[in-house]
Amino acid sequence: MEVGRVLHMNGGVGEASYANNSLVQEKVITMTKPITEAAITELIMCSSMAWPAKSLCMAELGCSSGPNTLIVAMEFVKIVSRLCRKHGHDQLPEFQIQLNDLPGNDFNSIFKSFAPSFHAQLLEEVGSSAPYCFISGVPGSFYGRLFAAKSLHFVHSSYSLMWLSKVPERVEMNKENIYIGSTSPTSVITAYYEQFQRDFSTFLRCRSEEVMGGGKMVLTLLGRRSESASSKECCYIWELLALSLKEMVSQGLIEEEKLGLFNIPQYTPSPSEVKTEVEKEGSFTINRLRVSEIAWAACGGNGVYSPEYSENGVDDGYNVAKCMRSVAEPLLVEHFGELVIDQLFENYRNILSDRMSKEDTKFVNVTISMTRKG
Amino acid sequence: MEVGRVLHMNGGVGEASYANNSLVQEKVITMTKPITEAAITELIMCSSMAWPAKSLCMAELGCSSGPNTLIVAMEFVKIVSRLCRKHGHDQLPEFQIQLNDLPGNDFNSIFKSFAPSFHAQLLEEVGSSAPYCFISGVPGSFYGRLFAAKSLHFVHSSYSLMWLSKVPERVEMNKENIYIGSTSPTSVITAYYEQFQRDFSTFLRCRSEEVMGGGKMVLTLLGRRSESASSKECCYIWELLALSLKEMVSQGLIEEEKLGLFNIPQYTPSPSEVKTEVEKEGSFTINRLRVSEIAWAACGGNGVYSPEYSENGVDDGYNVAKCMRSVAEPLLVEHFGELVIDQLFENYRNILSDRMSKEDTKFVNVTISMTRKG
Repeated sequence: MEVGRVLHMNGGVGEASYANNSLVQEKVITMTKPITEAAITELIMCSSMAWPAKSLCMAELGCSSGPNTLIVAMEFVKIVSRLCRKHGHDQLPEFQIQLNDLPGNDFNSIFKSFAPSFHAQLLEEVGSSAPYCFISGVPGSFYGRLFAAKSLHFVHSSYSLMWLSKVPERVEMNKENIYIGSTSPTSVITAYYEQFQRDFSTFLRCRSEEVMGGGKMVLTLLGRRSESASSKECCYIWELLALSLKEMVSQGLIEEEKLGLFNIPQYTPSPSEVKTEVEKEGSFTINRLRVSEIAWAACGGNGVYSPEYSENGVDDGYNVAKCMRSVAEPLLVEHFGELVIDQLFENYRNILSDRMSKEDTKFVNVTISMTRKG
Repeated sequence: MEVGRVLHMNGGVGEASYANNSLVQEKVITMTKPITEAAITELIMCSSMAWPAKSLCMAELGCSSGPNTLIVAMEFVKIVSRLCRKHGHDQLPEFQIQLNDLPGNDFNSIFKSFAPSFHAQLLEEVGSSAPYCFISGVPGSFYGRLFAAKSLHFVHSSYSLMWLSKVPERVEMNKENIYIGSTSPTSVITAYYEQFQRDFSTFLRCRSEEVMGGGKMVLTLLGRRSESASSKECCYIWELLALSLKEMVSQGLIEEEKLGLFNIPQYTPSPSEVKTEVEKEGSFTINRLRVSEIAWAACGGNGVYSPEYSENGVDDGYNVAKCMRSVAEPLLVEHFGELVIDQLFENYRNILSDRMSKEDTKFVNVTISMTRKG
């Protein structure tokens, strides 16, 4: 599978779109906001840049298309504007906001809906003296160069970097699973980890060219606390999807061989695995490294201890299944075809609802905040 | 009508798309290539920039979505690379290519089809040592700021700047016409001209902020040779569309009042009108100002003296009607609704075929090449 061509969140603003099913991603951005705010504040207050800079450039990597696309950009503009005014600099800098995702991302929706809302909200919050904010879309894989050398002051990315550039090679033995699972052979786990190491170090090398000295980068990845890559905390969500796929094999709706060949191009690292790569690459100083958790139920807007059925009669499994569908549908359609998708996610929903009513199910997030040396 | 929301070339890559019906625009880019090449060469050879620059940034304004979107960007990269090698600079600069159009433009098609083709072609033509080219999409009206201050080395735009930011006010008297026509009252012509003056001077003021000293700008507009704004050379194509609309009024398919309220947000200036605004604004020095012509028949890939029916049995009227449809359909749909469009362009095709067989029908282009002072 060509991940760069196939992988993208569901486009548009309809029922199954990512834009309509990205509540949990929004909450993760909110949870990690103190780290983002601290990085932006330090960028402005402690940097060796000529102050106030005439132009500040930030990039949102894996921006997708939805209400989350510009959340951090808005924070960036608001925090910098506030600091400028506080220190008597009435002349605000110009802001360049570069939105990056793979070429299959729905940039048209960003430009037609979310960018105009951004400008409207900015006027409302910052007032008529709102600074220039130049929004642009940058298509391409962040496992390659995307921006001019030394052009970025601030880079943010949330829930994107666990996606690998490709499904690792040598995972044919992973027949039972679609991701690392409790029954995955060690060779499969190693193949996944090595792919993560290659990809993440490539990512760091590319960004080290693009982020200027003193520039900041805040990344949040879906990850795990445990040192074991087959830990349930990171694998369970995919194991249950594999279960749904196996049900369809037993119903004769999907061929067993086809399932055996499908693997998710993702790796959910531990904090120390992230740290190791950053230190090995050497261009960035780590300022903060944090782990947080969010309940699967947050996909439906509920908190950690949500009831099985929420007030509007929709169960949590339904919301989690919809969220996962908006993320994984293009990958699944590419491999299994469109016809099986509705049934697959119906099965998945039922399995999710059952498990969520009995177990404490959570996503684990790893957040790292760094400064470009030099 | 909100021009900024409504105006865009037909998206996608289908039968009625701009991508499939932009041959004449391609030919105009080819015709004006010597002027573009001269500007790029002068930028590199005569500028006061540190040479070789580490990073060069160009913008294509009104880029639309099709095979024309990246033609000049490719020229830019090739010419600069050639000059670098000729002068022994093996380290090529990085290129930033900023593609601008209104938010309704089909950026997704650019990112999914035309940008990957660009990179493939570049590898083929420049070889494995091809420089980094960072392509981004910048949605917004060029009658406002789009880019950071002093960030651009080169700006190009073709067949875009005759579009006004809005239909001029005080053109209610223009009932018979949809653009300036031979029967338009003087007040209507003045209203159109004043709107052009306001828009074009705003454009120049915005670009003067964004283009760095010594930077170049090459603009081609649909225009006219004559000093008279109601000259047939620029008005005839719209007069014939008005004729098609009037036919539909007489057939009861369009209300007369509705036609009376429709006007095209366009102005086709003379060279001296363009020159006047540039001199008034004062930030740019004019290097070249040229007029050229291209036959309407070029819409179908034919030259100036094309036969009425080309080899595949399709007449020139068909091709011109399709070309005009790919450009004007969103404006017409917004005002008249979708239902009348097929019939309207069938009428238009017949009228065009008839006139083109009897008359020498041409578009007139005004091209201006400038240098940012300072």
